[in-house]
Amino acid sequence: MHTATITTQEIQAKIDLKTKPLGALGSLEKLAFQIASVQDTLSPELVNPHIIVFAASHGIASEGVSAYPSEVTPQMVLNFIGGGAAINVFTRQHGINLLLVDAGVDYDFGQNAKLIDAKVNFGTKSFAQQPAMTATECRQCLEKGAELVRKVQQTGCNVIGFGEMGIGNTSSASAIMSRLLNIPISECVGRGTGLDEAQLDRKVAVLTAALKHHQQVPDDAESVLTAFGGFEIAMMCGAMLEAARLGMLVLVDGFIASVSYLCASKMDPSVERYAVFCHQSNERGHRLLLQSLGVDALLKLDMRLGEGTGCALAYPLLQSAVAFLNEMASFESAGVSQKTETPA
Amino acid sequence: MHTATITTQEIQAKIDLKTKPLGALGSLEKLAFQIASVQDTLSPELVNPHIIVFAASHGIASEGVSAYPSEVTPQMVLNFIGGGAAINVFTRQHGINLLLVDAGVDYDFGQNAKLIDAKVNFGTKSFAQQPAMTATECRQCLEKGAELVRKVQQTGCNVIGFGEMGIGNTSSASAIMSRLLNIPISECVGRGTGLDEAQLDRKVAVLTAALKHHQQVPDDAESVLTAFGGFEIAMMCGAMLEAARLGMLVLVDGFIASVSYLCASKMDPSVERYAVFCHQSNERGHRLLLQSLGVDALLKLDMRLGEGTGCALAYPLLQSAVAFLNEMASFESAGVSQKTETPA
Repeated sequence: MHTATITTQEIQAKIDLKTKPLGALGSLEKLAFQIASVQDTLSPELVNPHIIVFAASHGIASEGVSAYPSEVTPQMVLNFIGGGAAINVFTRQHGINLLLVDAGVDYDFGQNAKLIDAKVNFGTKSFAQQPAMTATECRQCLEKGAELVRKVQQTGCNVIGFGEMGIGNTSSASAIMSRLLNIPISECVGRGTGLDEAQLDRKVAVLTAALKHHQQVPDDAESVLTAFGGFEIAMMCGAMLEAARLGMLVLVDGFIASVSYLCASKMDPSVERYAVFCHQSNERGHRLLLQSLGVDALLKLDMRLGEGTGCALAYPLLQSAVAFLNEMASFESAGVSQKTETPA
Repeated sequence: MHTATITTQEIQAKIDLKTKPLGALGSLEKLAFQIASVQDTLSPELVNPHIIVFAASHGIASEGVSAYPSEVTPQMVLNFIGGGAAINVFTRQHGINLLLVDAGVDYDFGQNAKLIDAKVNFGTKSFAQQPAMTATECRQCLEKGAELVRKVQQTGCNVIGFGEMGIGNTSSASAIMSRLLNIPISECVGRGTGLDEAQLDRKVAVLTAALKHHQQVPDDAESVLTAFGGFEIAMMCGAMLEAARLGMLVLVDGFIASVSYLCASKMDPSVERYAVFCHQSNERGHRLLLQSLGVDALLKLDMRLGEGTGCALAYPLLQSAVAFLNEMASFESAGVSQKTETPA
């Protein structure tokens, strides 16, 4: 841990002397403060932004917990590769580098220059009956995620977002959240990609039984990740931890990514300092999760897509935060009068 | 009124066939629908975006209702001209053309190529004692606002945002809101640029007395605008009406701009179809106003700055809405399976 050369008072003073009422830029001021603090400078920069999308297949999808069939996971990966998904559109719009990672999709993509092969296995096992992955697989995920981030950081990148694709992964995320935060599963479960009432009841029943089945699993994040899995969830967790360790800004997307963050923060609470929560999704458990973490998301657009779309859409707000800090005039430089003690 | 050639069903079908769960892009889908509908095309475009900032001085500011002295209004106009204000930074960031308009500042700016002279008078009168402006001045504001928009539209612009600067204008806006919506002034008033509790009490007392003083004023928007004024508020109202009439997208900024919109919508309800509410500010009356209008803002960043900053920050979301509609693959083109009737 290096020693900061810029004090928090210096950062706050620079923000407060800009030509605007105190605090008038709201969330952007908090963001500017965080970015300056993380980068330990009064003139922060966002360099070579990346978003990594981790894809994986889920054994639990065979239990009828998702509105879409499992083959959508590889199909959507091919759509990412072809440039036709929402995250392709939004990263192109904002000049963000998009990396696609096969963390464990149940499909053989062969060699593809546009897809990073970090496949741990062809999908997890169904955690209704057995652990989603082995302890070795979980460790592999954490390490591969970290390794990817190290490579990205070597390009000069200092801001990185994480997204995911994996039919069934809201089930995995809900189970992990329920277990790590000790919140009843019914409050952690939502409609995912679009379940109706009866399908939602089934999802809750499947997950309730699965949590019971694994009740002997220890409470640490790595054990819980191993049991309830998601190769993409575990790999994102490892990636977030490494990004924070390297002093990068960590953009957290929707519900699934926030569960990865939850795991990461249990392993190393200092990740919080680097995390920017980009979007509070419409997924039921997400609001509760962000509340439990004591954080606020920048955007609330009622989306429920994942893929890192929330990170991409929030990115211009980070740019705005940096821009106002660097470019706005101060009261003194602009010759603007400050607040009167007694109103005129 | 021209006849639409594209049906709402066609627009919705294009949105629904994109490779994402139904409705998963949340507010962006509604926005894409609105833009396509306004432009009557399945392939909308945002052309030559503009933000106009209207500045004016307020007689009511002499009653001790603002945390900042009145001279801040011309000082901030000079700051806009110099490029050092928040709105300069954010419009530069997003390639939005910024126009600055002197709607009635109590200052002689002389000739300045960067400031459009639409001065109606050197500030309004204090509506604590008399009407803020004459009926003729109000009409001038509405017409000058419309004329400005016609000129902008001739550049090909089809999306225009409106912001303002005017110390004292939350008082003016609160009084107009209270009167037009028949909501008690205490619920329409907030801390503006940063009043403390005692100052807020004084603001409420001043406005309560002023509303009583003008209780004989007719209830139509133009009479209410004349009584409680704000040259910038009235000019924005005229500008919004003309922009809607010309089929442009109208970006509504914070509290003051929303009050201009309220006046505009009372004069011509069809303005609603063209309006995008960009930011719900931290100003107390704003949430209530948006609720009363039955609309939701895209961003909630706890800002309270005005200047059109909400419009500028929300603009990339409009670009995203247009981009996903134009660029995302459909299920068919990408070979992605659609939702299963019964989950697998």
